[in-house]
Amino acid sequence: MSSSMLLSRRDLAFLLHDWLDVARLTERPRYAEHSRETFDAALDLSARVAAERFATHNRAADLTEPTFDGRQVHTIPQVKAALDAFAQTGLLAATMDSAIGGMQLPHVVAAACLAWFQAANVSTAAYPFLTLGNANLLLAHGSAEQIDTWVRPMVEGRFFGTMCLSEPQAGSSLADLTSRAEPQDDGTYRLFGTKMWISGGDHELAENIVHLVLARLPGGPPGVKGISLFIVPKVLLDADGALGPRNDVVLVGLNHKLGYRGTTNTVLNFGEGVHRPYGRPGAVGYLVGEPHQGLAQMFYLMNEARIGVGAGATALGYTGYLKSLAYARQRPQGRPVADRDPTTPQVPIVAHADVRRMLLAQKSYVEGALALILYCGRLLDEEKTAPVEADRDRAHLLMDVLTPIAKSWPSQWCLAANDLAIQVHGGYGYTRDHDVEQHWRDNRLNPIHEGTHGIQALDLLGRKVTMRGGAGLELLLETIRATATRAWKAEGEAADLAGRLGVAVDRVATVTRRLHGTGDPELALANATLYLEAVGHVVIAWMWLEQLLAVEASGSPSGPDADFLAGKRQAARYFFRHELPRTGPQFDLLESLDRTTLDTRESWF
Amino acid sequence: MSSSMLLSRRDLAFLLHDWLDVARLTERPRYAEHSRETFDAALDLSARVAAERFATHNRAADLTEPTFDGRQVHTIPQVKAALDAFAQTGLLAATMDSAIGGMQLPHVVAAACLAWFQAANVSTAAYPFLTLGNANLLLAHGSAEQIDTWVRPMVEGRFFGTMCLSEPQAGSSLADLTSRAEPQDDGTYRLFGTKMWISGGDHELAENIVHLVLARLPGGPPGVKGISLFIVPKVLLDADGALGPRNDVVLVGLNHKLGYRGTTNTVLNFGEGVHRPYGRPGAVGYLVGEPHQGLAQMFYLMNEARIGVGAGATALGYTGYLKSLAYARQRPQGRPVADRDPTTPQVPIVAHADVRRMLLAQKSYVEGALALILYCGRLLDEEKTAPVEADRDRAHLLMDVLTPIAKSWPSQWCLAANDLAIQVHGGYGYTRDHDVEQHWRDNRLNPIHEGTHGIQALDLLGRKVTMRGGAGLELLLETIRATATRAWKAEGEAADLAGRLGVAVDRVATVTRRLHGTGDPELALANATLYLEAVGHVVIAWMWLEQLLAVEASGSPSGPDADFLAGKRQAARYFFRHELPRTGPQFDLLESLDRTTLDTRESWF
Repeated sequence: MSSSMLLSRRDLAFLLHDWLDVARLTERPRYAEHSRETFDAALDLSARVAAERFATHNRAADLTEPTFDGRQVHTIPQVKAALDAFAQTGLLAATMDSAIGGMQLPHVVAAACLAWFQAANVSTAAYPFLTLGNANLLLAHGSAEQIDTWVRPMVEGRFFGTMCLSEPQAGSSLADLTSRAEPQDDGTYRLFGTKMWISGGDHELAENIVHLVLARLPGGPPGVKGISLFIVPKVLLDADGALGPRNDVVLVGLNHKLGYRGTTNTVLNFGEGVHRPYGRPGAVGYLVGEPHQGLAQMFYLMNEARIGVGAGATALGYTGYLKSLAYARQRPQGRPVADRDPTTPQVPIVAHADVRRMLLAQKSYVEGALALILYCGRLLDEEKTAPVEADRDRAHLLMDVLTPIAKSWPSQWCLAANDLAIQVHGGYGYTRDHDVEQHWRDNRLNPIHEGTHGIQALDLLGRKVTMRGGAGLELLLETIRATATRAWKAEGEAADLAGRLGVAVDRVATVTRRLHGTGDPELALANATLYLEAVGHVVIAWMWLEQLLAVEASGSPSGPDADFLAGKRQAARYFFRHELPRTGPQFDLLESLDRTTLDTRESWF
Repeated sequence: MSSSMLLSRRDLAFLLHDWLDVARLTERPRYAEHSRETFDAALDLSARVAAERFATHNRAADLTEPTFDGRQVHTIPQVKAALDAFAQTGLLAATMDSAIGGMQLPHVVAAACLAWFQAANVSTAAYPFLTLGNANLLLAHGSAEQIDTWVRPMVEGRFFGTMCLSEPQAGSSLADLTSRAEPQDDGTYRLFGTKMWISGGDHELAENIVHLVLARLPGGPPGVKGISLFIVPKVLLDADGALGPRNDVVLVGLNHKLGYRGTTNTVLNFGEGVHRPYGRPGAVGYLVGEPHQGLAQMFYLMNEARIGVGAGATALGYTGYLKSLAYARQRPQGRPVADRDPTTPQVPIVAHADVRRMLLAQKSYVEGALALILYCGRLLDEEKTAPVEADRDRAHLLMDVLTPIAKSWPSQWCLAANDLAIQVHGGYGYTRDHDVEQHWRDNRLNPIHEGTHGIQALDLLGRKVTMRGGAGLELLLETIRATATRAWKAEGEAADLAGRLGVAVDRVATVTRRLHGTGDPELALANATLYLEAVGHVVIAWMWLEQLLAVEASGSPSGPDADFLAGKRQAARYFFRHELPRTGPQFDLLESLDRTTLDTRESWF
């Protein structure tokens, strides 16, 4: 498959260079070795490896799920081959320090590189992506020795990583975790418990698997305050780092999913007694950082993982859009409305207004979402490398408030894009001969994992909007208003859209005050999901106004560039005309402090 | 599985008896042999057989698709067993004359009976449902001999039926069909061509398969005006009706679908030359009715099939709702917003406002859709049996204008309900251990087959609304206004909702005039889908106001009945508060004669 069916290289160039001006980052010491050319080379490499090694077995991995024979997990050989190719690119350490073998790429560029793999094969890409999150967490919170022992082999592609949070009785409610860790005399711990939904939890794709596990130390406080984080490898290492005895981490079974089928998803038992490392019960674990800091540490990974989920959702939406566009251009069916002569040739379906509607909607969703994901990547670079501390703080705060939106908006609307991609294909889209049905199934996981849609809503309205006295929301609205002000000065169409965005931003401010002014958290949070969805649409409208300004700054080129820019302009229009107005009734409901769901008694169902 | 996980018997009793008062139909000669008791017995029988014989292999039929070994099609044995049990119920002839072995049940009751099977196993139910449509078409348009030869064995469950419209180059565009029929000296025809997407097109589940095939006679006009309808059996019959030689209808291959996997979906070749019945080329066919009337005849079946699609979508949405409700009641997770003490026990997730939102939304969609489907069934009874001709005409006209809505609204919103059912289940909903993911996949076909969502939109705005000088739409709006007027007089909450419905109805009228006042069909139809969706929401709001009036007429019972009625009231509120307002921005766009999609050039994508 050509990489042009995965993402648009032209769009990435526009977003990264014309809009976000990433080449300027090379003025900073951390990125001084880079240039626009090295960025583009990394993108081209990603596109090529994704198309040649990942896209090629996307369907095969879906049709032939991993199996467990009671002894080990089997995956189709193309997965291992793709992961080896990925390890060769060095992208696992794309953003890491050169000291540990990293490429020191800006996060925004790395995000664009990784999106190619998510578009090509989201379930094979999950293995290195989980490993990446794991390694980054250890780089931030692990000791030098832990980094040396566990991160280096991950960067080299020899070890893979997981995150083990959920338990059968505690999915969204981490306060109810019961896995426990018993301290040993030698400073290690022994872990006992069952973990659920562990992606990449067992396989033969790497020499070892480094589990990051949340568990309770004896005597700690109840709830989330008593959770600590442990490294629990599948295979223990000898003193010299060589693979030693099997740790007591046992695969109970594989979950069989609707999509994402190529990624093993497991139930794992820790300390069940199947293996008794060094003759004693329990899975050997190593505490990361201080006791009882597990949740905060894991949130470090989780925030990154949430943006990653949004990026994956975007990539799946994007590739579905491109495939449905290609289909619409070549599939003849029917005639224009005005042509009632059945003897004239049929036209390609892209000629029908309703098909163009479905394409334009997809375009506005997936390009809007991609803009947000890259904007977040750019913020992360700002947070890490801005010369002035106040700028780093601002970036951190803005990133924090945007995270639930960057996770949930693409998960909702790029899934909707995949639904439209099926519809454009008609009956063919409903068959497994075309990719779009798989994208739709794969994408359906994204509103669930790493915190459900409803959890993101509570995070936004219950935490992010109130933190630091509301400074995060204030900063977001101020940043959006700054764009509107620039657009206002630009006059023309941008000024018109700026006016509409300004109205929407005012409604966000009013509604937020009203909700939190009730003094009744239950009432305030009753419609948190509506709030998340309305604010999400305002944020994406902002992303489209930003893109429109970048278009207007591009002058008046001719040829394919003119078409590209006209398409951006049209998608911006579409979003402001067809999408942003959806928020009107949502804001009305929020403002009315609607109690419909709150007042519904269970016995009424 | 208990039938209480498929549909709600209580809701059906409310809709059929308290609202539609179906027992009064027994005053009419055609239904004089029936009573409330016989209706209820048919419903109970349906619920039992659906639960015991259909639901039990729903997952198995999904996991083990039909296969074709080059010679014949294999299906799991439970399918045949279920179909035999269905034939025993006599429901295939539920609405047919007793003369042909029918039960002469009202259509509204039959629709409720059949919905149990769709909820239990939509892909196994498809075989008798297709047969039913086929038989009804022949009863309306076939000769007495054709009815005797083909319909009787179908009613007895010995023969199954299909409808063969689409061809690879002509899916939505029937004008472009190229299959042809050559007249023979003996009055039969020989057919040649390829048909696509033929459900139930080949299998070993019946002695014979009766294909109804659209094809062109030589010398006919081009386009849809030159299409004729033929009976083309898989196996030819001897003069005495016994199975004779194999006809030249050949299975080319099976389509492998996202859902509905238990139904064989085929590509068929007619007259390919594999079999040469009676030593001559071509598949033997028999003309139904007059030449060139095929489209009109097939529309007879298609309208019925479209309501059937809406009913199937509704049934899938309904069972998903009931399953997610049961899950929400038993799954403990988290605590109320106000309770921050992690040592208190977790609560069932139905206690969370966001989960109740997802349940209430599902309830409003599936019960609203079921009301519309049964309302259409009741209209069909009116069309067939109302004592006064003017009433029959009115019913026919109203049914005609409602058909695209009854097909598309449940297909869109009961699919959305299935999406919410997955979300209520969290990670578990994404696994194949729970039913909801299959319902979601199965339901995804409904916006595609029997005329896509976009085709329904063109049918509504381009045909139904303009036919007979706009009389159909006028009748619909008048009927809705009559409900609003009754509600207005009832005062209280119903009067409040009536006011809001009245405003929405006025907008439908204004917008329709505005669209057709342009004199530019391309512009008028550019946003046909928006129109379909907005009018659909107004129609379902009307269905909820109707139900609310029936609730208010039910007095003030206590116990479970009080809860049931309170639930209806709350769902009506939900629909008016959370759903109907979505139409505001849609009507605004339509009124503005929005050209966004029309003005988008293909090169801009």
